[in-house]
Amino acid sequence: MKIKYKLLKKESNTKARHGKLHTNHGTFETPMFMPVGTQATVKTLSVEELYDVNAGIILANTYHLWLRPGEDIVNKAGGLHKFMNYKGPILTDSGGFQVFSLAKPKDITEEGVMFKNHLNGDKLLLTPEKSIEIQNKLDSDIAMSFDECVGFPHTRKYVEESVERTLRWAKRGKDVHSNENQSLFGIVQGAEYEDLRKHCVEELIKMDFDGYSIGGTAVGEPKDVQYEQVEYSCKYLPEDKVRYLMGVGDPIDIIENVIRGVDIFDCVMPTRLARHGHAYTKYGKINLKNKQFEEDFTPVDETCDCYACKSYTRGYIHHLIKAEETLGARLLSIHNIRYLTRLTEDLRKAIDEDKILEYKEEFLKNYKF
Amino acid sequence: MKIKYKLLKKESNTKARHGKLHTNHGTFETPMFMPVGTQATVKTLSVEELYDVNAGIILANTYHLWLRPGEDIVNKAGGLHKFMNYKGPILTDSGGFQVFSLAKPKDITEEGVMFKNHLNGDKLLLTPEKSIEIQNKLDSDIAMSFDECVGFPHTRKYVEESVERTLRWAKRGKDVHSNENQSLFGIVQGAEYEDLRKHCVEELIKMDFDGYSIGGTAVGEPKDVQYEQVEYSCKYLPEDKVRYLMGVGDPIDIIENVIRGVDIFDCVMPTRLARHGHAYTKYGKINLKNKQFEEDFTPVDETCDCYACKSYTRGYIHHLIKAEETLGARLLSIHNIRYLTRLTEDLRKAIDEDKILEYKEEFLKNYKF
Repeated sequence: MKIKYKLLKKESNTKARHGKLHTNHGTFETPMFMPVGTQATVKTLSVEELYDVNAGIILANTYHLWLRPGEDIVNKAGGLHKFMNYKGPILTDSGGFQVFSLAKPKDITEEGVMFKNHLNGDKLLLTPEKSIEIQNKLDSDIAMSFDECVGFPHTRKYVEESVERTLRWAKRGKDVHSNENQSLFGIVQGAEYEDLRKHCVEELIKMDFDGYSIGGTAVGEPKDVQYEQVEYSCKYLPEDKVRYLMGVGDPIDIIENVIRGVDIFDCVMPTRLARHGHAYTKYGKINLKNKQFEEDFTPVDETCDCYACKSYTRGYIHHLIKAEETLGARLLSIHNIRYLTRLTEDLRKAIDEDKILEYKEEFLKNYKF
Repeated sequence: MKIKYKLLKKESNTKARHGKLHTNHGTFETPMFMPVGTQATVKTLSVEELYDVNAGIILANTYHLWLRPGEDIVNKAGGLHKFMNYKGPILTDSGGFQVFSLAKPKDITEEGVMFKNHLNGDKLLLTPEKSIEIQNKLDSDIAMSFDECVGFPHTRKYVEESVERTLRWAKRGKDVHSNENQSLFGIVQGAEYEDLRKHCVEELIKMDFDGYSIGGTAVGEPKDVQYEQVEYSCKYLPEDKVRYLMGVGDPIDIIENVIRGVDIFDCVMPTRLARHGHAYTKYGKINLKNKQFEEDFTPVDETCDCYACKSYTRGYIHHLIKAEETLGARLLSIHNIRYLTRLTEDLRKAIDEDKILEYKEEFLKNYKF
């Protein structure tokens, strides 16, 4: 069965929307923040901890799982859900972002992209067909089309060519996609050019994907450019399909892009920040390594309902981080993910009450950047 | 309130005993394996995971907590239990083992031991009084006297002098011990010399400690020497007090020393082995890094009731360990600790049934070294 998106409520002053996504592994409401489990594990966490923080869906990386343990092994285990013992929905990316971050421009051809395996240096070719084949075998609930994620800055000419290639790749991937229980998303590229975003959306709609991702963000562009890119994409995307903004998870970016019509976000930041001792709070990020927290026996965030905040203090987590004990990163990962899923809960409520702009204003009053 | 040991059953063919220890933070049965939480955390685990594996008591290291975060900070947090949010019994060592592993012989004087702080190189003096003062502030349920742990091999003359010093240190520590809710143990030294062990026990009994530890083991001595040392200590120890063998946790050593009358064990091995991908099983230790486990989708140990064995496969844990994901070490830590607490459960049952020698024989038939 494919996913089904149900629009529950449109906010009256903005493009924000509250919806519900049905998958073969459960239903969750949107907007939703999706934690990243690169190597079939969200770093330091058990699956129960993911259920507890209300992570409605998690992401796993096709590129990493292709290299290790390999999609055939995951398939033999019964697919990604059984392999990692996760009962909720899983989305896999296409490897497209690794094109951006690992491959050199000359390695991109019509056929696909040449990579250097970051584990052993071997040359590898990833094509739209191969990406879909791997994802079919991983058996995630939602697969991504293989796309080219163009960096920032760039020339319009390059983006024009790249969008056409991304569209041809989307078609090639769709043609070989064969997993009946897996939904497939098209990815909107086109950088900050409204006409290219519009064109890309229109061509993807013709191919009739199960949902749409917005790409080309979180590659170093200024925030206002990111918000424009999202605006230019959502404007043309169909209302009855879910929209996923790739790689974005900064709290303020979640708010701004929900306002522009995004439903799902993912980002490695909450877990990466946790490993460096940073925690989100209502008043902005704090660095628990700082000496000021040594004798602070209050929770990381008094307003938070997560396991870390209910059971442990800033002083203890300060000690764990300083002593390089992994429980510290684990507690802060739980907290930071919960912070973002709570943020999306608040946004859903604000949408229902048509008060999302007031919510944003109040948020900005407290949050120090 | 001090701890109370209740002897429930003596095995009829050996010196093994099944007992119960009452503490201010709950009661547990002995023999018991005690996991090590060096820096106020059992590496990678939450306190709930410790309750789940039936770790009746945990150990924390005085030396490490003295250096970081410092006993005053732990005291301000309300003691070790509140600091680390652990509701069960906690035992602290004295720093004596660090004398053995970090200090040079010439640094040991009548006053105490000069250390080099392993974090910043500063010179530090640890004395019997200081060790007790730190432990009083940490507010563990059970504190250890500061002793000298003599390495192996050694001369009889050195051990003779060292035992006398350890006895003088035990007296000095007892004289300053002031925490009414903390029990204090004397430590039996004397290496492999029965007369010295006997002498040490007799002098400690005169000081009337709340329980007794057996020291000078797990320092590189052959197994038969270790078992002799334990035999020579238990032989003279009072029946109505609990006995703790320090630093020993190899499965076969637990069995052999339970047979000789030991009640409590501790060891870093289950968690250290876990971090290197090793797991205890009925058939001996296995290294989950080995390629043979890549497509093995059975539990680590089919007879085990731990979280890791109930929810995850060897193949997945193989992947986590290879990919250096900390969930792998966490799952194996849970399993390895549970393996040892299950072993002590089995031994208690075997004691009740007067079948501990049969149990050992059966164990050795299966377990490959």
